[in-house]
Amino acid sequence: MTDVYDPARTAILLVDPYNDFLSEGGKVWPAVSRIAGEVGLLDHLRAVVAAGRENGVRVFFVPHRRWREGDYEDWDHPNPTQRRIGQSHTFAFGTWGGEFHPDFRPAGTDVVVKEHWAQSGFANTDLDFRLKQHGVTHVVLIGLLANTCIESTGRFAMELGYHVTLVRDATAAFRPEMMHAAHELNGPTFAHSITTTGELVQALKNGPTAT
Amino acid sequence: MTDVYDPARTAILLVDPYNDFLSEGGKVWPAVSRIAGEVGLLDHLRAVVAAGRENGVRVFFVPHRRWREGDYEDWDHPNPTQRRIGQSHTFAFGTWGGEFHPDFRPAGTDVVVKEHWAQSGFANTDLDFRLKQHGVTHVVLIGLLANTCIESTGRFAMELGYHVTLVRDATAAFRPEMMHAAHELNGPTFAHSITTTGELVQALKNGPTAT
Amino acid sequence: MTDVYDPARTAILLVDPYNDFLSEGGKVWPAVSRIAGEVGLLDHLRAVVAAGRENGVRVFFVPHRRWREGDYEDWDHPNPTQRRIGQSHTFAFGTWGGEFHPDFRPAGTDVVVKEHWAQSGFANTDLDFRLKQHGVTHVVLIGLLANTCIESTGRFAMELGYHVTLVRDATAAFRPEMMHAAHELNGPTFAHSITTTGELVQALKNGPTAT
Amino acid sequence: MTDVYDPARTAILLVDPYNDFLSEGGKVWPAVSRIAGEVGLLDHLRAVVAAGRENGVRVFFVPHRRWREGDYEDWDHPNPTQRRIGQSHTFAFGTWGGEFHPDFRPAGTDVVVKEHWAQSGFANTDLDFRLKQHGVTHVVLIGLLANTCIESTGRFAMELGYHVTLVRDATAAFRPEMMHAAHELNGPTFAHSITTTGELVQALKNGPTAT
Repeated sequence: MTDVYDPARTAILLVDPYNDFLSEGGKVWPAVSRIAGEVGLLDHLRAVVAAGRENGVRVFFVPHRRWREGDYEDWDHPNPTQRRIGQSHTFAFGTWGGEFHPDFRPAGTDVVVKEHWAQSGFANTDLDFRLKQHGVTHVVLIGLLANTCIESTGRFAMELGYHVTLVRDATAAFRPEMMHAAHELNGPTFAHSITTTGELVQALKNGPTAT
Repeated sequence: MTDVYDPARTAILLVDPYNDFLSEGGKVWPAVSRIAGEVGLLDHLRAVVAAGRENGVRVFFVPHRRWREGDYEDWDHPNPTQRRIGQSHTFAFGTWGGEFHPDFRPAGTDVVVKEHWAQSGFANTDLDFRLKQHGVTHVVLIGLLANTCIESTGRFAMELGYHVTLVRDATAAFRPEMMHAAHELNGPTFAHSITTTGELVQALKNGPTAT
Repeated sequence: MTDVYDPARTAILLVDPYNDFLSEGGKVWPAVSRIAGEVGLLDHLRAVVAAGRENGVRVFFVPHRRWREGDYEDWDHPNPTQRRIGQSHTFAFGTWGGEFHPDFRPAGTDVVVKEHWAQSGFANTDLDFRLKQHGVTHVVLIGLLANTCIESTGRFAMELGYHVTLVRDATAAFRPEMMHAAHELNGPTFAHSITTTGELVQALKNGPTAT
Repeated sequence: MTDVYDPARTAILLVDPYNDFLSEGGKVWPAVSRIAGEVGLLDHLRAVVAAGRENGVRVFFVPHRRWREGDYEDWDHPNPTQRRIGQSHTFAFGTWGGEFHPDFRPAGTDVVVKEHWAQSGFANTDLDFRLKQHGVTHVVLIGLLANTCIESTGRFAMELGYHVTLVRDATAAFRPEMMHAAHELNGPTFAHSITTTGELVQALKNGPTAT
């Protein structure tokens, strides 16, 4: 493990930790539960968030748009995912599915940025701005889904000049080949580090003096 | 084929048509030649560009940074691809490999936008601005590579509000599973249309009166 | 009057129509009331919004961040205006001052975009994206303040590729020289049109067939 | 002087130091020469650049688009300044006027970013990305013009999350009231510091240990 994370320059981006994604009974949970179980998703999300908070690495909540009545209806060309959400009302505002999972609620110095309309937490939000107001240059991405919101947020982060870390077992997807695409095919072309929760937590504990 | 392309609102984005990518003797050609041959890449790029020019759909050249002496050397954290280009000098400025393939040279009303440093033709360039100055709302992406520059440009285009069309056989990648990831796993989550050269050329010929 | 506004491509951007800015008793009203009265601000805002709605020109609400407990407190470098708002609690969330003026409430097909943290309605919001989803290429800016939020939103709009119209008497500022700077010194360098409410309303009524 | 500039986080942005702006015989020099002379512009630009280089504060060249044949001709709505440049051919590529003034040529570790099409050095360029690859969070703006390119670059920098310093006597404008607008009316609303060359050079020499 050669990556070193200076707490003053590093942030954890926790993407879309909604009940609909992470909780038994959530609308999308059945589609992610198999891989989530295999990689130990919830335990690993808890471990990364805890390690961040304990070691002074700020946690940014990066939430998807919570569906509201009328969303997408008069748009010229919503994308396929938005059209589907327009039917399924995933992450609906004011419902349990659109609340953060009880183990992932903002606390202490956490920052909650604006909701993203599609996949990238940077697009049409204040994420870049809020990171700059905290001096962040390195981002660690955890949450869902590996090949959509996590990957687009990671691709954007790299293009915007950030150092990007993906965490193989702190994310999930609908199918194993999507995990493979995210971490073996695409991630290596843009991400600076692709690691595991175990290695990451150790690096966060070691801090910048580890080198 | 239900997609309709109004020439006044549509652009073809031709990504990275360099000799290093597309020509016998190019540095990256050996890595893409197999899939390029299988899908008929060069014939299809020629067909789409010709159909665009003949039907009033403007062609935008979206070029990667041509490597120059010193590139990436004093950066804090170049990405893995940039570090590799720093060794291989792909698309080197002033060399044959960094010139556009002879069949893909700007002509007539084509627009050449600024070079992108990484994967997305929109990041750190004037692509969005130049599209707006031509009233473009719909973009068709062709060129290389399917899962890197084409995919990132498409993901950005969607996040910026454009209607996005991918063309399965007017792109290529290093491995078949990367084509599969681009068009079967990831593309369907963000692209509004995933089509073929044959269908696209027909739609461009039909024009907006086809509906 | 040579400007022509196609309803399908034009939007009215109504910036910061809060009680704190526009209503007797609002926190900033005393500082803008003199110029607001001289130019007939409220009547003109009503006239432009009405003309937009009647002629199919969509109205976008472009709201400033409503102050919330804790805002700016842990930022590395809030700007001078943000530091002042941190004291004055202007546009405080959940208070009357942070509500839209009763004559400027979203209705019908109006769009409310995300709150901006500083001066530009485009920065760190979804304004560009929402405009694209409605095919907008031309924006008309009204609201407050002429030399801060209106000017920054206008400067950004131009840089992003939009056609920009300022309306001299549908805005206000703290001092006459700020109005002069906005409309005589700076506006003419970036705005495509600087007009009056009377001329604008006539142009909106005439529609695109006026040429 | 309370501002402190850590060389590891600070950059000097030198905007548009072309012969057409800064040299006897330049196309725009007659329009700026009076104020340039009054404030001591060239000496102060030299002093700030020298102080930056001597104290490890990196200099970024932020150049305007050098006019090229065909520029703006097929655009839907170039702005008033672009239309004028389309006539005057200011900063023409390949001419003396479009070269940097001989005292302001990139050297050593200086960075030259992409040309901007309008007023903001951040819009449609790689400035934000290049600053991030050097860990910059604080920018000092010098060059021309105070109320157009400097002001727009400063307004954008603040919106993007940077700490912004303006330097009263290391810029110029066409008329004194434009300097007044830039430094007394608008600058104080968005810039974190408005200083003089003398104070700035002293702060750069003192470095971050001055506090």
